[in-house]
Formats: sequence, C-alpha cells, structure tokens
Amino acid sequence: MTHNFSDRISGLKPSAIREILKYGSTPGMIAFSAGNPAPESFPVADMERISKEIFETMSTEALQYGITEGYTPLREKVRARLVSKFAAATDGDDVIIVSGGQQGIELSCKVLCNEGDTVLCEDPSFIGALNAFRSYNVNLVGVKTDEKGLIPEAFEEAVKREKNVRFLYTIPTFQNPTGITLPFERRKEIYRIAVRYGVMILEDNPYGELRFKGEDVPTFKSLDKDGAVIYCGSFSKVLSAGIRLGFVSSPKDVSQKLVVAKQVSDVHTNQFFQILANKFLEECDFDAHVASIRKLYGRKAALMREGLTASTVSVKDKVTFTDPDGGLFMWATLPSGFDVPEFAKKLLEKKVAIVPGVAFAADPKKPVAAFRLNYSTPSDDQIIKGTALLGEALCEELK
Amino acid sequence: MTHNFSDRISGLKPSAIREILKYGSTPGMIAFSAGNPAPESFPVADMERISKEIFETMSTEALQYGITEGYTPLREKVRARLVSKFAAATDGDDVIIVSGGQQGIELSCKVLCNEGDTVLCEDPSFIGALNAFRSYNVNLVGVKTDEKGLIPEAFEEAVKREKNVRFLYTIPTFQNPTGITLPFERRKEIYRIAVRYGVMILEDNPYGELRFKGEDVPTFKSLDKDGAVIYCGSFSKVLSAGIRLGFVSSPKDVSQKLVVAKQVSDVHTNQFFQILANKFLEECDFDAHVASIRKLYGRKAALMREGLTASTVSVKDKVTFTDPDGGLFMWATLPSGFDVPEFAKKLLEKKVAIVPGVAFAADPKKPVAAFRLNYSTPSDDQIIKGTALLGEALCEELK
Repeated sequence: MTHNFSDRISGLKPSAIREILKYGSTPGMIAFSAGNPAPESFPVADMERISKEIFETMSTEALQYGITEGYTPLREKVRARLVSKFAAATDGDDVIIVSGGQQGIELSCKVLCNEGDTVLCEDPSFIGALNAFRSYNVNLVGVKTDEKGLIPEAFEEAVKREKNVRFLYTIPTFQNPTGITLPFERRKEIYRIAVRYGVMILEDNPYGELRFKGEDVPTFKSLDKDGAVIYCGSFSKVLSAGIRLGFVSSPKDVSQKLVVAKQVSDVHTNQFFQILANKFLEECDFDAHVASIRKLYGRKAALMREGLTASTVSVKDKVTFTDPDGGLFMWATLPSGFDVPEFAKKLLEKKVAIVPGVAFAADPKKPVAAFRLNYSTPSDDQIIKGTALLGEALCEELK
Repeated sequence: MTHNFSDRISGLKPSAIREILKYGSTPGMIAFSAGNPAPESFPVADMERISKEIFETMSTEALQYGITEGYTPLREKVRARLVSKFAAATDGDDVIIVSGGQQGIELSCKVLCNEGDTVLCEDPSFIGALNAFRSYNVNLVGVKTDEKGLIPEAFEEAVKREKNVRFLYTIPTFQNPTGITLPFERRKEIYRIAVRYGVMILEDNPYGELRFKGEDVPTFKSLDKDGAVIYCGSFSKVLSAGIRLGFVSSPKDVSQKLVVAKQVSDVHTNQFFQILANKFLEECDFDAHVASIRKLYGRKAALMREGLTASTVSVKDKVTFTDPDGGLFMWATLPSGFDVPEFAKKLLEKKVAIVPGVAFAADPKKPVAAFRLNYSTPSDDQIIKGTALLGEALCEELK
C-alpha cells in the first residue's frame, strides 16, 4: 500500500546535519557536537537510594496511572523553587509536569497556533523547538540577534510585519546554540513590545540553573504581570536527561489547555521519576548538587576557551568564540562565505565533531558562517586534544 | 493579556463525564469507572531488583539521553514477542518504543492526517484515542458495531461515503469500552476492504495479552501482507501503567515518520524503564507473569458477572452485559431512552461509579443507553458489594 503522510510531517525531512550528529557517537570521536549533560552530573547514589525507598513504601502510587497535571507534591516544589530562584511562577500561574522541556514547547505550539499562524524565534535557535513548530505547519520566522542576543527593534518589526504572530520562542539565558545571555534591559523592552501587540513569550530556560560566572538576570516570567509568558524548565541538566522530566509555568487558562493536549499525547509523565524527583528535592541538598554541576561546567568551559584561544592565535581576527556565563554551549563565528558544512566534514576525519550553524537557522536554506561547540559531554582530555585539532584545522582554512 | 487558543484545542472541552471519573477516587467510592490495572499485577520485587542492578551497572546509559526510536535491545525483544505471540511485526515493519500506547495513537494521526481528513472508528470507542484524533481537527466518524464488534459492511459504506479516509482506528480484541473481540472472519473482511480502498488500519491492542478464556484470534497485523497496519501495544497492563511504556510496529516508512514526530514531541521515552523492561523480559518469566494477571482478571470478571446476574434477575430482559474473554471491561446495554448520565449521578450517591456510554461515542451529542464497567481496579469485596448496589439501582429504575 502507498503511504501518504500529512503535509506537516512531509516537510520535516531528516537533515544532513543529523548525519554529523550521528558521528558524535562513533568510537574515538571527540564529540563537541552533543548536547548531553556530563554523566558525572547525575546523582546516581541518591537516585538509587530513593528508588529503593519508593519500591518499598509507595510502589503502587509510583507504578499506577497518575494525573495529567503531574504529581502534586512535585508541582508544589517546582513552583516554590521557581518563585525563590527565578521570581517565576506568578500567582496567576499553574505549574504542570511534562515529559521533558521539549514537550512543553511542542504542546505550547499545539494549543496556541493554527496552521499558518506565525511563530517568531531567535535566529539561530534550538533545532528541536524549531522542528516542533514546523510540525504544526506554522509560519516560522527568525528574528535577528547580535552579540547580546535578540534585538528588540527587529522583534517589533517582525511583529508588525508578519500575520497572526502568536508567540516569540526565546532561550534568553545561556542560549542554545550561542551561549549568549540576553541583558535585562532588552528583556524588559521585548516584554513591553510583546504585551503591547498581544504576542505571547515562550521562555525556554533549561540551562538557567547552570550559571558559573556573572550575575543572574531576571527571567521574562519574573516580569509577567500580564499573563504573557509560558515558562518551560527541565530536570534534564540538573538531575537526569534520560528520565524525561520537565515543567511548565503558565497562566491558568493556558495550563488547562496544555493539560488537555498532554492528556491525548502521553496521558501523564513517568510517575516513578516524578516521585523520585520530588523526594530528591525533599531529602537532598539540591542547591549543593547544582553548585557542583556549575563548578564542573565552569571548569570545562574555561578549558575549552583556553584551548581554542591558544590554538587559533594566528587567525584570531577571523574567528570569534562566545564566552558563555553558563549552560552547555559556545558559538564560533567565521568570515562570511566560510563553508562550515564542508569544514565540519573534513574535521570528522580528524575525529572531531561540531555542528554547523545552519542546523539552527530559522531558514535552513541560508548559509551560516558559524558552528556550535559543546563542553559538557567531552572529557577534559578530549577538550584539550579536540580544541588543538580544531584550532589547527581552522588555522589551515583561514590562514 | 487575552489568550486565544488554536481551533483544534478550543474544540476539546473537558466533558461532564470527567466529573464522574473524578469521583472514582473519592474515599469509600466503589470505582467501576476506572481503567487502571490491578496494583497486585505490578511485579514490584522484580522491578526493584532490576532497578538496583541498573543503578549499579549501567546508570549512565539509563540516565542519559537515548535515541528516539527506543532502546535497541528492547525493540528487538518486543519484536520477537510480537512475532511469536501475535504473528505481528512483519518483515517490512520497524518496531519503535513510545511513551505509552496513547502516544502511538496520537503520533499516527499526526503523521497520517491533514486537518479535515477522515478517521473512522468503532462506535463506541476509547475516548483517549478519539480526543487525540479530535486534537488534529480531523473528521472523526463512528462506524456501527454489533455484539460481534465492527460491522464490515458499515465500514465499507463509510469508506465510500466519507472524504479522504486515512485510517480505521480499531481495538479488535477485548475492546474498550465493550469488551468485545472481533471474530477472525470479520477481521479478514475488514482488512480486505481497507487494502482495496487504500485505507490504513490503526490496530490498538493494549489488552491482547490478557485473555482469560476462549481462543486467541489473529491480529490485523498478522494479515498484513500489504503494509496497511500500524500496530500499537503497551506495557501498561502487563508491567506498569505509571512508567508510560508502549510500542508501535509499522511499515518502515511509517515508522520513520513516527520517529520524526516523536522526536519533536518528547525526544525519546524514559530510558531507565526501557532498560528495566528489557531486563524484565530477559531475566524474568514474562509468560508466567502474564498468566498470573490473566488468572486474576478472569476471576474478577467472573465475580462481576455473577454479581450482576444475581442482582438484576428481576429485570434480566431489560439489561444485558457483555461477556468478555479478556481485558478490563464489560459493557451494559439498556432499553433505548434510558437516561444513563442521570442514573450514573444517582448511583454516585450509593458510592458506585460507572462511566455513561456517551463518553465513548464518536458523536457525543447522541444519547447512548449503555455504560462501561471495569473489574480490574476494584477489590473482590468491592465487586461483590458494588454489583449488588448497582443491580438494586437498576431494578428500581427498570422495574
């Protein structure tokens, strides 16, 4: 039988970039291409102890169907942390548990957008989110960014120009892929513009806990007196990625719709690990745990920057690297016209994998003279060796 | 800010039925309204032992991101079981892991249907699936069923009448809500019709392992020489519902699209419990475990039927109950015009909860003189007491 697929899915083709991402896991490869948290950041001993506790004292609750909104004690603890740490989760908000931050992003698009409506995003932005939006046949439009992140004027212009703009998708803190943190002044301005034009803000903050230098910048959610912000967070980078645990704080009526959409999608999030996360927050020192991850990533980021600076000294006018204050990623910018996909392919022969910038473009047909580097996955040795090889290759190409 | 929602979600209103479902969990209530597996069916000791093993020997793999298709050894074991037990998973098929059977259903609709396309289903059918289809703005059309299940002639008529029929959604074995198993002759006829008209079959088989009497009936998938069937299965009823673990066997090109859709939805299914399920299949006697669940539900079903027969003897010409060979549900049919929602409300005062048939109707505006009973969730005592109270109330109304 011939299989015909929906327009929304036919348009979502596996990209050439995926091939490069695949190489990341081949033996001997130094994978600067991943987005994985460091395995040593998983609190295995605590998780094992709590698992045992759950099986022994509340196995029925952990293995039975739960409610779509999420495990109530966990929802309360996440809310409390959002309030104390990010001034997020306003009084008008409900916090629900989702199966990873990605699900919060996908459901938000599903409940807010009809086909053809416009979604704005930073250009470049996180490919997983962009593909989620594409899978609802929206008009996805990238907004210009500079070294400080999203440009408010470009945002306003896009809002005025495009039809039925439903929301702005943004990762304001330690952005993926650039590592850039949007300054507070810009956040305020963008928030004002959004409210003025009735455009919602989908704030994706999976890395917010991972600051290793500089001062915290208030979230969009902390400004949200108008019920304009849907805030997505995740346990992937501070507990475990494989357990698929995230959360959304949004105005109550939005939360209700997200719950309706989630119910038909996966009924509810894994109940066992919701209970485990709740007990972890209750019994363990979450702040100390997060502090240890921050320290780890701060060290790895510094190591990567040092390596890159040293190995690209002879071409330092032609390549720049962002200097993130947290998160997992660094962004390299090259002279316009530089063929990054070709360079990335050659680099694979040297056993170093990077992700060409075009993978993160709102319009994947435009070339992007940049690439993304990740420092959370590779070991220290791999960072040292990989940055030397990468620098050597860059010097060769740019000299 | 005013929040405007997408058409697809605005149409999905929380129904009055949900209120009745909620009462199921109030203290003292005898919940014949649930769809939960019996807690004593969870193999807690084995799961605890395997969890410990995972934390001690492969914690990184279990807590790190996995691939969207699912954990490879589990995919292989599921495929092997599908082949040996259900003659399912044909050579042309790929098996992927999903976050519960519900996700397989939702993703199938997402990849196959444009808005306005037609989806056919048994009338009545599983509300979670129907709402998933509604959330993609499809034209959902119920096909007439009788005491043997879906009527092939009614199916062919609907295929000819409706526009762009993309697939038939069916639960052929121990159907939810009726408990009916579609005879093999009808399956063959429906399959032939589907192939003739290029309509796919979405076969939902979450209860297939739970036969407690009669002979196995071959699945639609076992007939699938034409790549016409998407087969969804689940670990919810044979391992644990709260861990959200299911699988889909479908033609390779369909699987690839399902993977693309799943990637933007939740990236992958909980990695820890994929590994746990794999080890359970490897190390434990799954057949013996399933046999014990079958025995449990066979006993509970018999207890419910005996209770109902005894308590409705004076109105036995006015109410009939299905006699399922497996699964979790029984279906009561009443004289046309009987106000079931009103009856269900009154019954709540007697502390017995049932689900009015209208909850399962493809067209929720048409009254349905029937209700669903579940026997897997309540205890034996509750079944005895609840069927007596239910029978008493029915006799009062029908006398």
